[in-house]
Order: sequence, then structure tokens, then C-alpha cells
Amino acid sequence: MADLVVVGSVALDTVKTPFGQAVEALGGAATYFAFAASFFTRVRMVGAVGEDFPREHLGLLDRRGVDIDALEVVPGKRTFRWTGEYGFDLNEARTLDTQLNVFAEFHPTLGARHRGAPFLFLANIDPELQLTVRRQMAGPALVGLDTMNFWIDGKREALGRVLAEVDALLINDAEARMLAREPNLIRAARAIAAMGPRLVVIKRGEYGALMMSEGEFFFAPAYPLDSVFDPTGAGDTFAGGFMGYLAGRGLTDPASARRAMVYGAVMASFTVEDFSLERLKRITADEIEARFATFQRMVRVEA
Amino acid sequence: MADLVVVGSVALDTVKTPFGQAVEALGGAATYFAFAASFFTRVRMVGAVGEDFPREHLGLLDRRGVDIDALEVVPGKRTFRWTGEYGFDLNEARTLDTQLNVFAEFHPTLGARHRGAPFLFLANIDPELQLTVRRQMAGPALVGLDTMNFWIDGKREALGRVLAEVDALLINDAEARMLAREPNLIRAARAIAAMGPRLVVIKRGEYGALMMSEGEFFFAPAYPLDSVFDPTGAGDTFAGGFMGYLAGRGLTDPASARRAMVYGAVMASFTVEDFSLERLKRITADEIEARFATFQRMVRVEA
Repeated sequence: MADLVVVGSVALDTVKTPFGQAVEALGGAATYFAFAASFFTRVRMVGAVGEDFPREHLGLLDRRGVDIDALEVVPGKRTFRWTGEYGFDLNEARTLDTQLNVFAEFHPTLGARHRGAPFLFLANIDPELQLTVRRQMAGPALVGLDTMNFWIDGKREALGRVLAEVDALLINDAEARMLAREPNLIRAARAIAAMGPRLVVIKRGEYGALMMSEGEFFFAPAYPLDSVFDPTGAGDTFAGGFMGYLAGRGLTDPASARRAMVYGAVMASFTVEDFSLERLKRITADEIEARFATFQRMVRVEA
Repeated sequence: MADLVVVGSVALDTVKTPFGQAVEALGGAATYFAFAASFFTRVRMVGAVGEDFPREHLGLLDRRGVDIDALEVVPGKRTFRWTGEYGFDLNEARTLDTQLNVFAEFHPTLGARHRGAPFLFLANIDPELQLTVRRQMAGPALVGLDTMNFWIDGKREALGRVLAEVDALLINDAEARMLAREPNLIRAARAIAAMGPRLVVIKRGEYGALMMSEGEFFFAPAYPLDSVFDPTGAGDTFAGGFMGYLAGRGLTDPASARRAMVYGAVMASFTVEDFSLERLKRITADEIEARFATFQRMVRVEA
């Protein structure tokens, strides 16, 4: 089992869907990622919250075995907040409000234990920050990265520099097309691989995810659910399952990355079944393995 | 190898895509279906064309071994015509013009050879016509059916009656949601199975297709293509590959239906690479098997 460091946002989310709403619930990319990954490996979170961050959330992460020593609680500051809503097409969120708060001045410096970790995930933050974190690492086996349209549009040059130094990129399909400036997703994946990452993972919400690795494609459908309640955090949970599985086994080969894709899809399937981390809080290792087994049956073609 | 009868439209299509256009090119659901299925089994087409239907198209089908004895050439009538266009989102066609012509008075009566065929596909036509054809069959092993929003909306009751007498329904995702009156696709598939068909196949364009059979789900991604030229006929070709494979092997069990889904996806992948049947005309059995093998690698997860 190898250490996995994640750097990214910890937030309080206010989310409205056609099925209900949650007010100032625990959220943030690093939170979903770390919680999901904690089922597979030792996770060390790097982030910042304000004084107003509820203690119970820290307790929740701590009880899952997540190392929160580098999750700074900054005096006199407020926690990052995001407010968004979804219509019946749950594939796309509409952001109503973003308050960076403590996150506006987030400049992480890693300690020795974090620098030496073999697995690193750079969640969706300013690519310049991602690069400074990347360069603090001693010599990781696998570095994963997420980004978004805001940075692709506004900081393409800095994003290009960090992409040249990561192993895996995990983004959604609209972002992949935007990054590659190519509407065809297959060509987009190839163009992105040429920018640096040897594993290109493209998330397609309810349609699953695809991975390009060494020129070969792998497709993982989304786990079929009777009811999708709130998609917030699904992509981050996917990344947590993906990176967590690889770190837990200490593997980085393409066949392991395929199993990691399935674990990513499985973890994301739990997230969307309730608001915030509510469903994730209740899962067991047996439930994860049961969905992994179901998943294998779902794609099996006998010769 | 078992006989496969298909009943449906034979058309002259005028199609515009961002990449070019085709004027009065060979099209129609039964045409795409029969051509694709002919690589796997003996196909007998039932349909009608006008006097203006180019002889070369009949020759093309005949050379593929398709039985066109029941493809009526009606004197004094014109062939069915469809005009449509696609934007850069190739998932949805915009119909600009439909001229039923000879198809307006299409009332097929099957001969003895057709009535005794073990496999039947009812392509997208009026559900009342589909039912009269269905009831002419002696006792088929597997009956497949396609339909569209126009009939779901306008002839729901007749559609319900024919659905109760078929084994497999193949429709797209928007149609499945509309038919089941259920936005969640998983619940929609279950609701449709309750209407009759034991195999529910839902086509999702570039996202592939899913099948529900005996309560179990199977997912087949779309074959990854560098360039999609014209999606017209992709769904009909999928159905041709699916039904053709099953008829060719004389099988109707769920494991065979999974392989049939993959052959459907493979055949559709050729169709979209060019206008009309241009790409299909050039394929070989080896190319089909090569894509089938690639497909299996694309979804493989080793334990």
C-alpha cells in the first residue's frame, strides 16, 4: 500500500437538484477524492479551510484514516463555498455562486512525508499552483491531474507546462474537446496524450468513462442506477477510486489502470445516490466489491 | 443459418452534414438492415419502391445475396424520399422533408417462404402494419422491432399491442424515455420489458448501446472512430448486425445476444464512416472480425 497525496479544494456546498437540496454540506474535490481513495490506500490531504469549518467534518475524514495534518485551518478566514443547481438533465451543473475565501490565498508547501509519496493527485486548482506542488515531489510513481474549462480557457500556457509533467489526466468530455480544440473525442484523446500524460481518462457522466493508454482505448460504462440524486462530486470520487486503487496496489501498468477505471466508476455510483458524502459514509468494502463484480458481468462478452 | 425477414422502408436519401452532402442516395431502414445482416445470414427483404428506383441499387442487394423477390417495384409510383441534415452534434438529425410516395400505400402480404422464417425484423413503420406482418408469421424464434417518436406519440395503443408480441425492441434513448414515460434509462428499460419484449436494446449513438435481458444489463460502447462522416442508417445497421448474427447462428440466448450487440456496434461503425452504404459496400468479413476483436480488447478487465 503506497501513500497517496491529494491537493485541492475542501468546500461547503449548497446544491439544489429536482429531488431536493443541501445547504452548506461537506464538499470539495479533495474531500470527495480522499474519502473515496481511503477505501483503498493511505491518503494524505493538502488543503485549507476557514475557522468556520465544522469540526465534525474533520472527524469524519480522520475516522476514515485520512491524514489531515496538512489540511490547514486558517484563523480569521472562511471556508471555500460553492452554490449550484441541476435541472432534470443531471449532466450539467449551473454555478450560482463561488466564494473562494481561504482558497484565494492557498499556496501549499509540502512537508517531507508528502514530498516522498509515490502517488499524487492534483485536483482542479490553478495550474500554476499544480505545477509548484508537482515540482516539490521527490520522484512520484504516478501523478494524476484534473482541471476545468476556466483554466483551459484562461491559463492554457501554464496548464500545458503542468501537463508535460503528469502521468494521468482525468477530465470530462467537454473539457477534453476544449483542451484539444478537437470535437472528435478519439482524436482529442490522442492530442492530449501528445501533451504529456500517458493515461488520458475522459469522464462522460451517465455514459461512463474512456481511457487511452499506449494508443489503446478502454471503455467503462457508468454503473446503472435506478435513481441519480445529486451528481456533485461524482468526477472527484471517480478520480479517488481510480488513484486510490492504483496506490493501494502500488501499480501503474495499463491492465491495473483498467481495473482502477472500474473502481472509479463504482465509487462515483455511490456518490450520486445521495447529497454530499451521505451515501459514501454508509458504504462497506463488501458493497464496493459487489458492484465491481456486477460491473464485470455488465461488459462480459464470451467468445 | 436461419432465414431473416425484414419489413421496412427503402428510400432515396438527401443528406447534408458539416462534411459534405449526398443527393438521392440509397437509404431506408430495411436497406441498411438487410445489407448489414447479409454478412451473417440469408436475408429476405419485404418492401416497396417506385418505378424511379435505380436498377443499380437492386443489383447491389442481389449481389450481397439478399432475396429481393418481395421488394415490390410499383408502376406509376415514386420511391420514398427523406431529406435531412446534421449539425456538428451528429447525434441528432433534422428532418427537412419526407415524401412517403409508394410507402403511403404499403400493405405487405407475406408469401409462404417468408411466413415460415424463424427470424423477423419489423423496421420502423406504422405499428398497425407491424402487427399485421407479425401475425402472418408461422411461429418465429425471434421477432425484433424498431419504432420512433412519431408512433410512440401518435399510435401508443397500437404500438403496445405489437410490443406484446415481439421478443426484442431496439430503439434509441430518447425514444425509450418517451415510451416508458420515465427519464431514468434503467427504470425505462425495466418498464419497457414489462410491455412484452424480453430483450430491450437501447441505442445511444456515439455512447454505444445497452441491453436489458432477464433483468441483467449489458453495455456495449460505440466503436471509437477518428472521424464520423454521416450517422444516417447507423441504428438500422446496428439492428442488422444484431439480428443477422443471431439468425446466422440460429441462437436466441442472452450470451449470444451480447455478441450480437457487439456485431451491431461493429456494423454501425462502418456505416457512419461514409455517406449512404458507401463504406459498407467496401467491407470484408476480415474487417468485421478485426473490429469485433478490437472491441473485445476495448472492454476487457482482467481479474
